[in-house]
Amino acid sequence: MFLANMNEKLHKQIKFIEEIDKVKSIFRQTRLFDNSRFENDAEHSWHLAVMALVLAEYSNEPGTDICKVVKMVLIHDLVEIDAGDTFIYDEKLKESKEEREKTAAERIFGLLPDELGTEFKNLWEEFEKRETKEAKFAAALDRLEPMLQNSKTEGHTWKKYGINRSQVLGANKIIKDGSEELWNFALSLVDACVQEGCLIED
Amino acid sequence: MFLANMNEKLHKQIKFIEEIDKVKSIFRQTRLFDNSRFENDAEHSWHLAVMALVLAEYSNEPGTDICKVVKMVLIHDLVEIDAGDTFIYDEKLKESKEEREKTAAERIFGLLPDELGTEFKNLWEEFEKRETKEAKFAAALDRLEPMLQNSKTEGHTWKKYGINRSQVLGANKIIKDGSEELWNFALSLVDACVQEGCLIED
Repeated sequence: MFLANMNEKLHKQIKFIEEIDKVKSIFRQTRLFDNSRFENDAEHSWHLAVMALVLAEYSNEPGTDICKVVKMVLIHDLVEIDAGDTFIYDEKLKESKEEREKTAAERIFGLLPDELGTEFKNLWEEFEKRETKEAKFAAALDRLEPMLQNSKTEGHTWKKYGINRSQVLGANKIIKDGSEELWNFALSLVDACVQEGCLIED
Repeated sequence: MFLANMNEKLHKQIKFIEEIDKVKSIFRQTRLFDNSRFENDAEHSWHLAVMALVLAEYSNEPGTDICKVVKMVLIHDLVEIDAGDTFIYDEKLKESKEEREKTAAERIFGLLPDELGTEFKNLWEEFEKRETKEAKFAAALDRLEPMLQNSKTEGHTWKKYGINRSQVLGANKIIKDGSEELWNFALSLVDACVQEGCLIED
């Protein structure tokens, strides 16, 4: 709603806040821990942000700026408002992911006042590149959450798409770049899932 | 899932991460901006965290630690896993809110390793007291989001419960303590809502 006495900058900020509500309707392939329904991108981003606070000590690099990690995970899926969710095991859809998401980033972060828009776009690009310690740790969290969800929902997504152990390990091995400790945990989790029949052996 | 070779601290952290998934099933009285359904606490907390980043410059006090504000809003509704959502205009339910939420905070933050649990509990108490500049700004965001949602959903919650202009102003006037600029915006928003018939005049 544009109000007569509203400054243009605040107007842009409010429009952005309204626009990003749409990620609450972008659903992922993973389900809530109680298996009641699929998770959406807003919930996923919130969960990663709290995980960043709770698991901060496990980042490989002690100087990791956790506040930056939190910011990254809060905005990392906003591009999916336009580009949609790209399932990690969908090799075909992954081919066009980068281009679709870049176009989305231009439009969505472009709604913000210039300085803020650039800051958010840079943060998103840093996350995507996975080169800095913050981006590596953020990516580790982004991979760990769906593994936890699958372990609590009898491997829902894995079973649905016939994903096996080596595919899970291959798709998630970047956890190690952000956190050796969380990767060791993930390996044990995968073993337990295979033993319990939630995940098929190769 | 407890894994054989897992250290006790990480075990507690993972249990907490699983437990807080429940806020995704705690629904609020306000609806998504597209009026498709009610919003849950995880989505609400995510939205406030992004709002903190986008609207940081409007905090009354320039030295406001936005990272702390973000942390506060991320965890501020975890107590509702046990205590439920307390509707801001429900005077009867509000009487028991403090006691219900304190008990919830003990249990939920108590799941974490000691140091982290204390940090989160202190942050939540700081938010509730609204004395520091960070808590005041966090509270301003917490009140602004539902006003924006009502303005986009033809005053859904206001109409449902017969809430009038002075009740909205009374319940939300604490926005001013966190941000004069956002309060001025909120006043204009309320005027526009009354003119458009989304909110009843006293």
